[in-house]
Amino acid sequence: MAEGKTLKELAELVGGVLRGDGSTIITGVASIEEAKKGDITFLSHTRYRRFLATTGASAIVISPELADTAEGRNLIVVKNPYLAFARIMASIKPVRHPPAGIHPTAHIDPSASIGRDVSIQAGVFISRGVKLGDRVVLYPGVYVGEDVEIGSESIIYSNVSIREGSRIGQRVVIHCNSVVGSDGFGYVRDGTRHVKIPQVGTVVIEDDVEIGACVTIDRATTGTTVIGRGTKIDNLVQIAHNVRIGEDTIVVAQVGIAGSVKVGNRVILAGQVAVTEHLEIVDDCVIGMKSLVSSTIRDKGAYTGYPLMEHRRWLKLQALVQKLPELKEKLRELEERIERLEKK
Amino acid sequence: MAEGKTLKELAELVGGVLRGDGSTIITGVASIEEAKKGDITFLSHTRYRRFLATTGASAIVISPELADTAEGRNLIVVKNPYLAFARIMASIKPVRHPPAGIHPTAHIDPSASIGRDVSIQAGVFISRGVKLGDRVVLYPGVYVGEDVEIGSESIIYSNVSIREGSRIGQRVVIHCNSVVGSDGFGYVRDGTRHVKIPQVGTVVIEDDVEIGACVTIDRATTGTTVIGRGTKIDNLVQIAHNVRIGEDTIVVAQVGIAGSVKVGNRVILAGQVAVTEHLEIVDDCVIGMKSLVSSTIRDKGAYTGYPLMEHRRWLKLQALVQKLPELKEKLRELEERIERLEKK
Amino acid sequence: MAEGKTLKELAELVGGVLRGDGSTIITGVASIEEAKKGDITFLSHTRYRRFLATTGASAIVISPELADTAEGRNLIVVKNPYLAFARIMASIKPVRHPPAGIHPTAHIDPSASIGRDVSIQAGVFISRGVKLGDRVVLYPGVYVGEDVEIGSESIIYSNVSIREGSRIGQRVVIHCNSVVGSDGFGYVRDGTRHVKIPQVGTVVIEDDVEIGACVTIDRATTGTTVIGRGTKIDNLVQIAHNVRIGEDTIVVAQVGIAGSVKVGNRVILAGQVAVTEHLEIVDDCVIGMKSLVSSTIRDKGAYTGYPLMEHRRWLKLQALVQKLPELKEKLRELEERIERLEKK
Repeated sequence: MAEGKTLKELAELVGGVLRGDGSTIITGVASIEEAKKGDITFLSHTRYRRFLATTGASAIVISPELADTAEGRNLIVVKNPYLAFARIMASIKPVRHPPAGIHPTAHIDPSASIGRDVSIQAGVFISRGVKLGDRVVLYPGVYVGEDVEIGSESIIYSNVSIREGSRIGQRVVIHCNSVVGSDGFGYVRDGTRHVKIPQVGTVVIEDDVEIGACVTIDRATTGTTVIGRGTKIDNLVQIAHNVRIGEDTIVVAQVGIAGSVKVGNRVILAGQVAVTEHLEIVDDCVIGMKSLVSSTIRDKGAYTGYPLMEHRRWLKLQALVQKLPELKEKLRELEERIERLEKK
Repeated sequence: MAEGKTLKELAELVGGVLRGDGSTIITGVASIEEAKKGDITFLSHTRYRRFLATTGASAIVISPELADTAEGRNLIVVKNPYLAFARIMASIKPVRHPPAGIHPTAHIDPSASIGRDVSIQAGVFISRGVKLGDRVVLYPGVYVGEDVEIGSESIIYSNVSIREGSRIGQRVVIHCNSVVGSDGFGYVRDGTRHVKIPQVGTVVIEDDVEIGACVTIDRATTGTTVIGRGTKIDNLVQIAHNVRIGEDTIVVAQVGIAGSVKVGNRVILAGQVAVTEHLEIVDDCVIGMKSLVSSTIRDKGAYTGYPLMEHRRWLKLQALVQKLPELKEKLRELEERIERLEKK
Repeated sequence: MAEGKTLKELAELVGGVLRGDGSTIITGVASIEEAKKGDITFLSHTRYRRFLATTGASAIVISPELADTAEGRNLIVVKNPYLAFARIMASIKPVRHPPAGIHPTAHIDPSASIGRDVSIQAGVFISRGVKLGDRVVLYPGVYVGEDVEIGSESIIYSNVSIREGSRIGQRVVIHCNSVVGSDGFGYVRDGTRHVKIPQVGTVVIEDDVEIGACVTIDRATTGTTVIGRGTKIDNLVQIAHNVRIGEDTIVVAQVGIAGSVKVGNRVILAGQVAVTEHLEIVDDCVIGMKSLVSSTIRDKGAYTGYPLMEHRRWLKLQALVQKLPELKEKLRELEERIERLEKK
């Protein structure tokens, strides 16, 4: 196909060493099990090495350690094959967003400031005082509240709601049906009734953040909820008011972070983790799936559990819980032996 | 009311045995506690038998075992009363979708292929290359990306987003505000920065699947995310990239399934279950509420826990954890007795 | 600024005792750490007392106990400073909704009954038989199904979907992208196939309820799903068919409540709690974060755990689980001592 690239071009793109026929035309990308003629694939784990013999791929991105086991194949040899493969994917299968232009059914307040080459699709609503950077893409049904700012090259997918005053950086991606800037969950009791604490703060999403689908990020009560540069958030995550997340952190699906929590840089929160309010997690922590973080974590490391503990300790304790039947039986046996001794 | 049906008609509809007055007009359906004159209800568990004396229902769908305890009532006697009742409900209270027609505010790309008698409501967006089968219903605010296919008689409720390339089967139902085909959550580190793995695969939703509200189903990285025929998914569920779910499986609310997991046929995942990536759950498993599945399940059965174990073992261990105070006390007592023996 | 209020006005608004300069103009609200000149803040916990010396606030709402430690500051002294502060926030930073009016791109069925001074924004869809009270605000992209009723002064944020027949009270707030009235998750097996139980019931949201973003509230199978007066629901919560929640209850983010559960008044369900079907939680219970409620709770109190138990017992058992390594070691030691005794 005309749209393909040669293996030589791709090797140069990723700074890899070419082995085999550089004129091979690559038109697709696939996993090593599913690749067909014309596809490029990658191999970085020995676990998948068995597919080397059978894959239909026309070329393989591979690490130096594994390259020698792939005799007779077209290869691009690089230190980090998955990273190189990601770049090749982006080159061969670039995401195609709708072209620049404003759909006639979009509502744009005359006070809004709109950058160059933006794409504003059908049914988008842009309120008073909004500022859009260059090349922003707003898919159908996106709602943008008053005074929202969206930096250049950000992509907002369909039916996302961005409430008033939120500030979105550059190259941010927000997937379908997510909500940015909803009210924080704050009430104060007046007898048995709950009186709402007005939520007058804002949300700041820094550059290069990606936010999944059906995510909710609440505005601050006063001040700012912050998602730091380069942080990636999966689907159905809840970020409460006044949370501050650092840079390059990973928040996996269905995590819930309560109010005023501070999460550091390069943290990983695995799926369905919950974090209780007003605590802090330092840089470089890894919190295991489904854990409950209920007190501040001061030392970097791997933690798991409900309640939370060091991951290794959790593994050890879970193994001991499994042995409770034997412990109980042993206790019974010792008691009998004591009884026999006592009777003597 | 003119819209009612006779009890005789309903008995024939479900192949049940009529007892009592077949000319009774049934106009509504209700639970046995709440039923009034004109309503039909059902009784399948002895637990609700006490309502037989007091229910206002004009007729009862009932099992042969319980029928004799309902003397003097109008009955339809069938082996599976709840199944028969479901069919009677569908007959007496049919779902009314908007009539066929295309609302003038819908955007339909000229290249789209639209079946017969479709209903396309206000603000729907249909992109280039979309194919809609006959009698498809798209409620207001639905977004349909490029090259999406939706099979005949499928119902897509309001504000659903379906991203490009997704393929939806026949008689599929997707409830409000769900997302199909959002990007999988995949990054590779380049130093501390996370580089996005382009998500170039697709989603296939097979025939007769039902998907709840605010569900997120991610597209595959490469290849396909698959929801098998007849599988039913509740609200707020997360299905990650490259997951493959079998047929007739039940996924209850707030379940999260991580990337590349394979779930079998007729599996039940109860509410808030989490499944970690790259593992497999065989056919006919039942996973208890809030469990964490963190390794492959090879044998069918009932499992529960965090971490997961056989459901019976989990019950036993939880009972032993409850007895830890006594075990500790017993240990102290034995130690004292040993001390006394040692002193002798 | 012209929009400010004097401290004297604010003291009168909340029935507090003014100390200091009542003519001070207050134009903003902030936390005690972040407050600047022109801001009012509050202090209710001794934990934040250290900020008294450094805060830039022009005035402080404070409790009588702490007032004497704030010499030389402008104060409003009240018994419940946070409650008073909430009222001051609402007065100084009132929420501005779009003005009354109907956007030309809104679709309103001619049979709908629309109150006075409603605000119906772009792309709203109002079906046949809908009734809207006075001063209702519907943000862009809201879908309102047939025969839905929305009471006066309710606010429905962007892209919310309200299915047919739902009844929403007065002064209800529903945040972006939530779903009210989706089908309950009910099937009955016919062999291996799942036959849908038609969901013909409704949802009733009583007065003064607030519902977060991306919440799903299912309609009843038959009868009614009820959210009681004054109850507050956080983001990403799942409420299944036929659930009945009492008054002034708090449901924190990502809670899941299964079908036919009855939750009392003034209950607190903390984040990510799951409640299994058909059970009851009495008034005034507090359920700890991430707990699994799997049987009826008859006595008010604090409960935690998976499985659930009294909160204090849970704390005690978790402490004992942490001691399992020592218990096991002790057991080994006792066995050795018994062996020595036996050898004598």
